[in-house]
This record gives sequence, C-alpha cells and structure tokens, in this order.
Amino acid sequence: METNERLLLMIPGPTIVDPKVLRAMSKPIMPHRGKEFSEMFLEQAERMKQVFRTKNDLFLLAGSGTAAMDAAVSNTIKPGEKVLCIVSGKFSERFTEIVKCYGGEALELNFEWGKEIDVNKVKEALDENNDIKAITVVHNETSTGVKNPIKEIGKIVKETNALLIVDTISSLGGDNINVDEWNIDLCATGSQKCLAIPPGIAAISISEKAWNVIEKTNGYSYYLNLKKYKKHKHHAPYTQPVSMVYGLKVALDMIFEEGLENRIERHRKLAKATREGVKGMGLKLFPEKEEICSNTVTSLRVPKGMNDKKIREIMKDKYNIVIAGGQAHLKGKIMRIGHMGNVSKRDILCTLAALELALKEVGFKIELGNGVRKAQETMDGE
Amino acid sequence: METNERLLLMIPGPTIVDPKVLRAMSKPIMPHRGKEFSEMFLEQAERMKQVFRTKNDLFLLAGSGTAAMDAAVSNTIKPGEKVLCIVSGKFSERFTEIVKCYGGEALELNFEWGKEIDVNKVKEALDENNDIKAITVVHNETSTGVKNPIKEIGKIVKETNALLIVDTISSLGGDNINVDEWNIDLCATGSQKCLAIPPGIAAISISEKAWNVIEKTNGYSYYLNLKKYKKHKHHAPYTQPVSMVYGLKVALDMIFEEGLENRIERHRKLAKATREGVKGMGLKLFPEKEEICSNTVTSLRVPKGMNDKKIREIMKDKYNIVIAGGQAHLKGKIMRIGHMGNVSKRDILCTLAALELALKEVGFKIELGNGVRKAQETMDGE
Repeated sequence: METNERLLLMIPGPTIVDPKVLRAMSKPIMPHRGKEFSEMFLEQAERMKQVFRTKNDLFLLAGSGTAAMDAAVSNTIKPGEKVLCIVSGKFSERFTEIVKCYGGEALELNFEWGKEIDVNKVKEALDENNDIKAITVVHNETSTGVKNPIKEIGKIVKETNALLIVDTISSLGGDNINVDEWNIDLCATGSQKCLAIPPGIAAISISEKAWNVIEKTNGYSYYLNLKKYKKHKHHAPYTQPVSMVYGLKVALDMIFEEGLENRIERHRKLAKATREGVKGMGLKLFPEKEEICSNTVTSLRVPKGMNDKKIREIMKDKYNIVIAGGQAHLKGKIMRIGHMGNVSKRDILCTLAALELALKEVGFKIELGNGVRKAQETMDGE
Repeated sequence: METNERLLLMIPGPTIVDPKVLRAMSKPIMPHRGKEFSEMFLEQAERMKQVFRTKNDLFLLAGSGTAAMDAAVSNTIKPGEKVLCIVSGKFSERFTEIVKCYGGEALELNFEWGKEIDVNKVKEALDENNDIKAITVVHNETSTGVKNPIKEIGKIVKETNALLIVDTISSLGGDNINVDEWNIDLCATGSQKCLAIPPGIAAISISEKAWNVIEKTNGYSYYLNLKKYKKHKHHAPYTQPVSMVYGLKVALDMIFEEGLENRIERHRKLAKATREGVKGMGLKLFPEKEEICSNTVTSLRVPKGMNDKKIREIMKDKYNIVIAGGQAHLKGKIMRIGHMGNVSKRDILCTLAALELALKEVGFKIELGNGVRKAQETMDGE
C-alpha cells in the first residue's frame, strides 16, 4: 500500500524531489549573513551558471519563477516602450501581462497553441518596429507541451538593439539551453521543475547588453530590483530562503554527478518513450509535429467523448499517479504528462500502464499493453 | 562537543527552528494546485489571521519579509503621493527607500536611533499635510532594539484618510500585536523571526480601508500585486513555496499549543531577564529608556574601548553562540541579543554566562556571575 506521500508526480511541476534534497532542507538554519552561509550561497549561484551555460551575472531570488519573469521585465522596460511578446500558450501570455503591468506596449505575436513558432514572423516584426525594446518568449510551454526555437530567435535578436527575455522555468536542467550561445539577455527560471527542488527559489541571468539597459532604467520593483542585487556583496539584498538553498546545493550535486548532458539526454529519451507510448495507445499528441514536442512534458489530445477528469481521477485513486489536465481553452481537451527532474524509466512505464487501464475503464477502445510495449521498445537494449 | 549545526542563534533572525518544523519541511512535495495542498494552504492563512489578530484578508507570499513591505507600498502609493515615513532605524529607512522607489514623496519624520517616537509629532505632521496617503512605521526596530507605539499611532491615523502600514517582521508572534484594534491597514511580516520558521515565506494583511485604495491604484508590481492574490481562488496566483507552508503549519501548531498570550508573555519575561543580566554585568542598554525596549531583541552599548567583533568571535568560537553587532552607524557601538521564537530560559542563561566570559577575556572589568544571577533572580520561583 502506497501512502499519499508516495504520490507519483507526473505533472509539469512541482516534480518529485529526491529524499536527499528533502533531508538537506531540514538542516538547522545558519545565519544568512554569516560567512559560512554566504560562501555556500554564492557557490550555488556560480554552479547555476553552469546549468544556464553562461558567464553572465546570475542571481538567486526568494520567490517563485514568476518573480524572475517579473524581474526580467520590470528592470528593463519603461512605460510606453514596445515589447514584442511571442504568445503561444499560458505562460507566454503571462509575459504579456507583466509587460502591460509595467506600462510597456505589448506587441503580441500570436501563434496557435500547439503550433510551431514561425521565426520569420519574429524577424518581420522586428524589422517593422525598430524601436522594440525587448522580446519575450517561453522556451518550453508547459501549457501545450511545445518547445520553442530560442536559438533561432536569438540569432535574429542579436542583430538588433532589443533584449531577448526567455522563460526557461520548465526546461532548465532538462533540456538543452545555452544562454551565452543563444544570446539570451535575461533568462528566468524556477526551482520546482527540472531542477527538482521544492518551489520557493528562482534564478535570473543578466547579460552585459541587459545591464546597459537596466542601468538606464529605473526599475519599477523594489523587491526585485536587480541593481540592488548586483550592488550587494552577497548578491542578496534581502534575507535568502536558507532551507531552499540547502536543497538547491544537493540538487546541483545530483545534476553534476549525473552530468548535465546525460541529464538532458535522459529527459530526451524519456520524452520519446512517453510519446511512443501515447501513440501506441491510439492517442494523438497535441503539438502539430513531433519535432517541436517538449523534452519535459508531453501533451496529448483527450479522445473524443472521454472525460479527462475521470481518467485522471482513476490514475490518482487506483495507481497513486497524478498527471495534469489542460489549461485555459484546452481544459478537457488535452492531458499533460510531466517528465521532469528526477523522472525515471520506471516512472514512465507505470504511468503509461496506468493510463491504459484508466482509458479502458472510461470506455476508450484500447488493447492493454500496446502503449507500454512501444515505450519499452525505445528502452530495450539500453 | 557541539557541532556547527547546534549553533545557538541569539541574533534577531533567522532564529532557531524546532526540529519538528524542520522535519515537516522535508516531507515530499504535494501538487500545489491540488485540493489537499490548497486546503492546507488556506487553513494556514486563516490561522495566521489569529496571530495577526485580524479579520482582514491575509495572504501568504513566496518571498522574504521585504516582499511584504514592498507589497504594502507598491499596491497603495501612486507616484507623487505623500507618505509619512517614521524613521528611527535601518528597517524604517527601508520603508522610505521603497516609497521613493515607487515614486512616492517620502516625508521623513526622523527620530534619533534608540530614542522614543514622539506620537505628537506624528499627529502634527498629519495635521500639517492633509494629503498624506499613508504612514509607514516599523513596530519592532531590530537595528536598535526599540519597540514603537503602534497602538497610539493607529488611534491618530484612524481619524484621517491615510493608511497605516506597519512592519511587524521581528515582533509578530513574540509581542503583542492587534491589527484590528490598532487600526493597522497593511501589516507585513516574515517567517524567520518570532514565528521561528526558515526564511522564504511572508504574510500581509489588508484592511477594507486599504482595499478601497488598492482598487483605485494600479499597483506597480506584478509579482506582488495584491489584487491578483485576492482574485485567485486560493489567494495564490503563482506557485506557493510548498515546503515552507509545511513548516508554517507545524510552527503554527506549536504557537497555538503554547497559546499566543503565553508565548508573548514568555518573550516579555525573557527580554526582562536579558536586560537585567546585561545591566548586572555593568553594561548599558542602548534604548533611552526601558519602557521602549523590544520584547524580542535586546541592544546594549559596547563598553568603551572594547572590540565587539572580538567579543562576538569568542562567543561563537568558545561557546557556539552567535549574537549580532550593530548596523549602519551603530556598527561597533552596540551589540544585539535576539530572543525570538523558540527561545528558552536556558538559552538566555548560557548566552549571558558566555557574554560575561567573553567580556572578561577582552579586558572588560567584570565579576563573573553577576549578570547571570540578575537574570536568574527574574526567573526564580517561576
């Protein structure tokens, strides 16, 4: 019998946290301004740079990933300035909201949810508006299961004066991200996805190009004012979330032990296995083509006439596995399987097997085992 | 032999966290949008209202106490609006900075650090400027060890259109605070002081009077926009710091088990014991009079010619106890003993005993045991 504390989180965050990390979080609190903690804190920021693949400044923030998204915009955009917001899901919509909140003029470049971003359209928009101050884009849209072409967008933005602001909250540590090579000026991330730490700590990297803008902008936020972070000798003007930093340390230990490349490859393979499994059950992936499918979350169409809520309830009640439904207008239309962080082959196999059983239970025509076998075949011989 | 993990934190935050709370923080993560966590989360917010003694709305924020201070100002003050900032220490200065950051006109009402706030001057300032939008004040100035007369200020502010914004970060749960009776419109607090949780979660309460202003103000912050918190069915528009909430739950269990009144009384008695001990060593308290001394932190003057850094080093190296030095212009001039949260008679006694030894070691003329005995006498027969 599995207790609720063994609930298998196959959602796009928060993800399963390793007991080692959890144990670290229950260590007694050190004085946050003491030498011991400060050194440890700064060391984790340095190590995070390796995950970001950047030599840029990087700060750890006490807050959720949205705090880092907010910081990226509120420190760079003055009221009335134009921001090109690439929108193709719930989290890219959030960027639009943030831009508007700080008085920016959000030029929305909309793409249908689940469809590929047309990089040419991004170039056109930048050519047409040479006064665009920044571009916001989400690397990995958890709401649709689509991965966006940041590298290609970065090549275009690099040739302009605009800043590239990217949300990598649900991909950093689980997919290939190269902040410096891809010319990401402000890269925002959170802790509870592929880094596999509880929510409550965020990170942001800032390029020289971004600093030049920030120095000239009177950032609107006090709590998230990046100049204050830079000025403070520990890059932490306010009290840091000490226990979260303990957890981050052990999580980073685990990431580097596995090797970042290996970790990304593991995510890639498990994503592939999940997609094969889903297709093997006769289900359809939600993204328009497989090349744009996320490494960290697989979204699939709910079969016609089936109630996704019921399917997810069965998975939870009978198998202690939680997967996610759709958000906004995709509610009831898609389901999402998160495979982020410490996810394993075993997790994928049991999730697919349980999904098959749940689908059968709600009346979907399915031959049990087909999906699982397809996933197994991707793992066979490894 | 005591390891560093048994370091006794006698600083004004972070404070010693009970192992029960620490263990709770290492529980596996629940989905933050699931029913189970949501109910638990909302329940803790309700329980926090009891500690605030308020029927007002109260939200839990992912961030440090400064996030709550920021939210109080950034949601209520429009550029150009006047804010009366009562300044008598480092944290009340922070409020001034926040007001200026959001374009407010900060009218500083300065009082010498360590001196009593003259409530009449507050009244005069409000009478002279009938367009003051808000008053900021810190209940318990950890930088000076002084407690400010919020109740009296509240009586005055109540008669005006201005909002009363109070920082209770270092007193809530350790001193008497009555948000509703004292007419506090926005009360901001953090976790790592008297509540005795690790840093990383903050709370803010909002009165009807404050909501009326907030509804008419386009708050400048996205992450800390209180309207978004109110609108969200779980009062949490962004991912909550799940582990911190686990810790908060157990910490609140402990507070209600002890009884809030008893807890405040314990702080009051231990503060008294600390002061008697300090005076018994021949040291002088920093606040100008004992009536305004804080319940949660005792600040004392460093004896002439003595090096406080050396004293604190001895206490740490030989006795594994950490107390704080002074901040800003009080560096080297005062030392501060925090007695917040889960502090006990035992903690006070050993701290005083160690302080005596350290003072003697740096050459201060002291008869060992006098301070400790004075503290003991306040405890005798209890």
